Amino acid sequence: MSDVQQQAQAARKASKKLVTATEDQKNHALQAIAQALRKEKASILKQNQKDLDQAEKGQYSRALLDRLKLTEERLEEMASGLEELITLSDPVGEVMETRIQNGLRIEQTRTPLGVIGMIYEARPNVTVDSTGLALKTGNAILLRGSSSALHSNSILAEIIQQALETTSLPPEAVQLVKDPDRTSVRELLTMNHLIDVIIPRGGAALIQRVVQESTVPVLETGVGNCHIYIDLSADPVMAHRIVINGKTSRPAVCNATETLLVHRDWAEKHLTGLSEELNKHGVEIRGCSHTQQLIPQCIPAVPADWETEYLDLILAVKIVDSLEEAIDHIHRYGTGHSEAILTENDDTAHRFMQGVDAAAVYHNASTRFTDGSQFGFGAEIGISTQKLHARGPMGLRELTSYKYCISGSGQIR
Amino acid sequence: MSDVQQQAQAARKASKKLVTATEDQKNHALQAIAQALRKEKASILKQNQKDLDQAEKGQYSRALLDRLKLTEERLEEMASGLEELITLSDPVGEVMETRIQNGLRIEQTRTPLGVIGMIYEARPNVTVDSTGLALKTGNAILLRGSSSALHSNSILAEIIQQALETTSLPPEAVQLVKDPDRTSVRELLTMNHLIDVIIPRGGAALIQRVVQESTVPVLETGVGNCHIYIDLSADPVMAHRIVINGKTSRPAVCNATETLLVHRDWAEKHLTGLSEELNKHGVEIRGCSHTQQLIPQCIPAVPADWETEYLDLILAVKIVDSLEEAIDHIHRYGTGHSEAILTENDDTAHRFMQGVDAAAVYHNASTRFTDGSQFGFGAEIGISTQKLHARGPMGLRELTSYKYCISGSGQIR
Repeated sequence: MSDVQQQAQAARKASKKLVTATEDQKNHALQAIAQALRKEKASILKQNQKDLDQAEKGQYSRALLDRLKLTEERLEEMASGLEELITLSDPVGEVMETRIQNGLRIEQTRTPLGVIGMIYEARPNVTVDSTGLALKTGNAILLRGSSSALHSNSILAEIIQQALETTSLPPEAVQLVKDPDRTSVRELLTMNHLIDVIIPRGGAALIQRVVQESTVPVLETGVGNCHIYIDLSADPVMAHRIVINGKTSRPAVCNATETLLVHRDWAEKHLTGLSEELNKHGVEIRGCSHTQQLIPQCIPAVPADWETEYLDLILAVKIVDSLEEAIDHIHRYGTGHSEAILTENDDTAHRFMQGVDAAAVYHNASTRFTDGSQFGFGAEIGISTQKLHARGPMGLRELTSYKYCISGSGQIR
Repeated sequence: MSDVQQQAQAARKASKKLVTATEDQKNHALQAIAQALRKEKASILKQNQKDLDQAEKGQYSRALLDRLKLTEERLEEMASGLEELITLSDPVGEVMETRIQNGLRIEQTRTPLGVIGMIYEARPNVTVDSTGLALKTGNAILLRGSSSALHSNSILAEIIQQALETTSLPPEAVQLVKDPDRTSVRELLTMNHLIDVIIPRGGAALIQRVVQESTVPVLETGVGNCHIYIDLSADPVMAHRIVINGKTSRPAVCNATETLLVHRDWAEKHLTGLSEELNKHGVEIRGCSHTQQLIPQCIPAVPADWETEYLDLILAVKIVDSLEEAIDHIHRYGTGHSEAILTENDDTAHRFMQGVDAAAVYHNASTRFTDGSQFGFGAEIGISTQKLHARGPMGLRELTSYKYCISGSGQIR
């Protein structure tokens, strides 16, 4: 039996114990981990420095180095994030619905999912954040981070396990999957009897690989080719603010705006002004042929621009003749993440919100709000772009399943 | 582009129209299909006879022939099943939860899933039943039945499409996938951008193939290796009734009982009597070594018996020392379908219901109740044995997803 299989079996066993853990026991474990992280700050930063040193020798981008880097402040955020989870109520055990049928009392009751397989890139904070969400919902978790963060993830997992040893939860509830021969991902993706769900977090290539190869059910997260459609009746001042915010407030995240669709009547009057504003914020515009007429200095858009998640200060701009053309464009190129319409016409807004098929559809607000904390979930493990199980930000509730508990008095059928 | 791809694209396009269909429009379509089925009874039975003739020439079992056979009565059941769906309320559009955050109104709103790919064996009634459930929830459906039912499924799909042509719903919402070169299943399983979910219905081999090969999310259904655990305090009269019902009322269905676990104290007093009752009902007992001492005439169980879904008048019987041993056995061999405990001790029942990881867990009732109609769902498209999205009987609500509709007044982050 391989190491990963042994780890998965231990996780499965731990998950059976977690099912009956009380909310107090789970909260106590979260507190113990938070304290241990604070206590071991120096050792964590030392191990993180090893990862940073290696990454600097490699061909890694500045963005990756930033995601990899831990600081005292980031460690404190991780610890206080765990403490925030303590304040949220545990969804497990909640009776979602009660039915009486055939004299049977049928209670649909929230349960943990069981064992979560987390496959992720670079950021060591995911190790701690997903551990917290998993434990609070009574799930065991197998963490398969990237090799670039191995030193950081190893010490974090070690500290978590040591902290769990001081509590009533089993330390095998949280395990880092080490992977000397790089076969662990494939193994994780096919252990249907030991793992209940795989959650990938990272770039499009990682997510695609997981979707293609996994026989375990997957919660697909993340890729966001998000649009703002400016309708003919949109308020120009509001449109300026929202487009600048959607594009520039944090361009590297999945809920940033990537393509602007503009009704031609609005474009004729206001697009030049908006493009000047975008220029001031350093945004490069890639425009359709009609856009090129109104903004001669823009870069001509090529077909690939409509499907690109730039994650950068670049905005594709297309002028459309109608709401329907905007919706069709989003159907064709959107990734089902976050889409917005700016309009003063409520009927148009309603048609857009009904017709667009995405996790979050906005009327007169920035796409940047698609986020567990902004939705009031307190925390999130990722943003689902699939339609099964969970859509949009996934918080505690989305890490649960349910079962029907049926009480009878001898009923037969 | 292959035929299946063209069909899937047409289904995707139809699904966009279905999103905005009203409940009245959908009910009208269900009524039109029910009427057409009644009107075309003679032609349907004629085509069904062709399938039956072919099947009789082949190596098909009596059970398969029975599943394949349509009668006037069965056709009327299919038509009235559609009419029953009309009386159920449409879940699409329901606001599941409203949150106010950052001045934004965030409404979690039920939506159709989109396009459902149904892959199933033999029974032509699945063609009509799943069409009804899909249309009522605003989903398009691609039906890939087995070749043994091709004539029956073809005429049913034709009648459904003709009926849809008289309504405001697009006929491409329901399409039968024909498969001269037998590549359509693989194609369906990998069309991630056109199909939102695959639902397999049939034997274990079909379901396993779908789980292994599909990159589209799957709702795994059906295999039920269901247990009844008779605790030491179980009422003997109730235990007799429930065990006989679980095993013999309809042995070929997935919620039938396959293994009996008996606490040794109860077994010493009552197992012989129960075995005599089972004998009278024609049930073959395959017992563990301890069982063999109490019922000398039983067949010795081999390890494979604990994991077999007999779907027949055979019952595996194992005597256990404790509740924990019973739960461990179910963890090891159960398929997460339906599990029951018979006990007069409420604390023991609670521990069983909390500890056993299955879609439906019963206290003092037969496993046979795991069924959409018995749960009051009105209809079901299958029984999920996975933990993601839906667990247990899947009715209308389980054929929906949701999206967040967010209304603002210019908010930025």
